[in-house]
Amino acid sequence: MKFEVTILGSSAALPTLQRNSTAQFVTCCNRSILIDCGEGTQMQMRKFGVRFQRLDIILISHLHGDHFFGLVGLLSTMRLLGRDAKLTIICPKGLPEIIVQQLEVGHAQLDFDIRFIELTGKEHEVVYEDKSMLIETVPLKHKIPTNGFVIREKPKERKMRKESLEHPLMKVEYIHRLKKGEDIVTESGDVLKSLELTDASKPACSYAYCSDTAYAEKIIPFIKDVTVLYHEATFTEQHRELAKATMHSTAKQAAEIARQANVSRLYLGHLSARYADGKQHEEEAKEVFSNTIYVEDGMSFLVEN
Amino acid sequence: MKFEVTILGSSAALPTLQRNSTAQFVTCCNRSILIDCGEGTQMQMRKFGVRFQRLDIILISHLHGDHFFGLVGLLSTMRLLGRDAKLTIICPKGLPEIIVQQLEVGHAQLDFDIRFIELTGKEHEVVYEDKSMLIETVPLKHKIPTNGFVIREKPKERKMRKESLEHPLMKVEYIHRLKKGEDIVTESGDVLKSLELTDASKPACSYAYCSDTAYAEKIIPFIKDVTVLYHEATFTEQHRELAKATMHSTAKQAAEIARQANVSRLYLGHLSARYADGKQHEEEAKEVFSNTIYVEDGMSFLVEN
Repeated sequence: MKFEVTILGSSAALPTLQRNSTAQFVTCCNRSILIDCGEGTQMQMRKFGVRFQRLDIILISHLHGDHFFGLVGLLSTMRLLGRDAKLTIICPKGLPEIIVQQLEVGHAQLDFDIRFIELTGKEHEVVYEDKSMLIETVPLKHKIPTNGFVIREKPKERKMRKESLEHPLMKVEYIHRLKKGEDIVTESGDVLKSLELTDASKPACSYAYCSDTAYAEKIIPFIKDVTVLYHEATFTEQHRELAKATMHSTAKQAAEIARQANVSRLYLGHLSARYADGKQHEEEAKEVFSNTIYVEDGMSFLVEN
Repeated sequence: MKFEVTILGSSAALPTLQRNSTAQFVTCCNRSILIDCGEGTQMQMRKFGVRFQRLDIILISHLHGDHFFGLVGLLSTMRLLGRDAKLTIICPKGLPEIIVQQLEVGHAQLDFDIRFIELTGKEHEVVYEDKSMLIETVPLKHKIPTNGFVIREKPKERKMRKESLEHPLMKVEYIHRLKKGEDIVTESGDVLKSLELTDASKPACSYAYCSDTAYAEKIIPFIKDVTVLYHEATFTEQHRELAKATMHSTAKQAAEIARQANVSRLYLGHLSARYADGKQHEEEAKEVFSNTIYVEDGMSFLVEN
C-alpha cells in the first residue's frame, strides 16, 4: 500500500459545484485514514473509488460544520453495509455525543466498535501509534480549538538481498538483526556486515495536514522537514485582511510556513468559493516556495521524496 | 410560479452515484418548499439550479438520517450567504435541539428567524395555511413516527373577462363578488351573471408526498383524489418480504394505494440501492395503476390535471 493522499473535498465553508467540503483519504503503512468529513464525503468516496469499509482511522480537525457534517452519514452507511471491523475516531471533545444523538433519534445504534479519542486542540501529542506509523496533532490557530495532524512512517528496516540468504554462514536468527543495520559476529568469528548483505529501504516519509488556521509560526517545529505539507489557503493576497479577520491563511502565508519548515512539497486547499480555481493562489505561493501545487477534488498524490 | 416538483434525491437509505438521499423542491402559490433534506441536498440544489435562499418552508418527514442529515449544512450555508428572511421548519419533535447543538459547537448561531413547528407524526392536521394554499400531514406507517404531507392549492377565484370590464353597468365593487361566482343585482334591477362575465380558473391541484411507509390503507382518506401522488417504492415484488420487514413498500403496493385513492398520476421513488433504475418498479406498478412514472434525480414535473 503506497503512502498516498486523495483529495475528496477542497472547498472552504461554502461548497461549490467543483469543490466539496473538506475531506481527504490517506493510505499509509496498510492503514486507511480519513481526515475530516464534510457533508457529502461518502458520495465523494464513491465517486473517486475509495472503499470506505476499509477505513481504520478517522481524524476530525475541528467542529466547524464543513469539516464534520458528513461523519454521521458515513457511519450510518457503514452500518447499513454491515461493517463489523472496529474504527478509531480521533476528534474534538463533544463530537461523540453529537453523533450518538443523531443516530438515536432514528433508532439506529451502530453495531460495530468505535473507539473515540477526544482532543482539546491545545497540545501537540502522539494520538496513534503502531509498529510502522504514528499520528501526531498540531495545535492550529483558529476561532475554535483545532488540530492539524502529521502522519509519519517509522524508520524502515533495511531489505535483505536475495543472494545474501544463500550466504554459507547465514542463519535465520541473523536476518532480523541485519535488517536493523547490526553486523553479526558468527560462532566461527566471521563477520557478516549489514551494509554488504542488505539494501537501504525508501526513507520514512511524512504528511502534515494543517487546516483551518491563521498564519502561525508556532506550528513550524511540529511540521519541520515533513515530506508533504497540505496547508489551507482560503484566500489570495488581495483578501489578506479577510484572512486575518476570519483566522484563515493566504496562499503566500502558507508558502512562508512551508519555506520555514523546510518541507519538500506544498499543497494548497480549502479555497474560498469566490475563486473559480487555485491558479492565483499557486502563483502567489510560488514566489515564496516554488514546489507548490493547488489541489482539486479527486486529485491523488504520493507522499514520497 | 407554477405548481412544480423537482426531485433532488431519489435514493433509499444508501445513496448511490446516480441517486442522492431524499429531498424534493416544490413551488406552489409563490411559496418555495423543501420536503426532506438528506445529506448533500444543498449540493443537489446547486446542481439543479434551485435557489435555496428563496426557501420559505422546510418539511421533514421523519428522523431517519437519509431524510434529515443535510439540514444542518443547508442552514449553515444560508447563514454564510447572509440570509435574513425567516424560515418555517415543520419537523418531528426533537430535531430543533439536534440542529442547534451542531451549530453551537462551532460557535455558528443562526442569525435569521426560524419558526420550528414540531410534530408527533400521529395526527392528520393542517400545519400551514395562507390565502392560497395549505399543507396537511399524513401519518404514515414506519419504524419511527413519520409524516407524509399534502400540499393543496385552495380553490381559485374565477377570472374576469377583459370585455366584461367594459360592460356599461360594471362597477369596481362588483368584481370581487363576480370572481367568487356570485351574480349581482344592480341598483337598476339588472342582473350581471358571474358565469357570463368570468371564466373558470384552472382547478385547484394537490400534491401528496408519502415516504417512508409500509403499505397502509389508512392513509387513503387523507390523499383521496389528489392530482399527483409521490409514494415510496423501495422494493419490487421480488423483495416483498423485505419490504414488510423494513416497513417500506413495493412499487405494486404504491400503485394499489394510488388506485384506491383515485389520484391522477403516481410517481415512484426512494428506490433501494440494489436496483440500477426504476424500470422494473414502473412495470410492476402499471399492472395496477397505469399512470405511473419512476423518478430520477433532477427530474421536474408539474402538478396539474
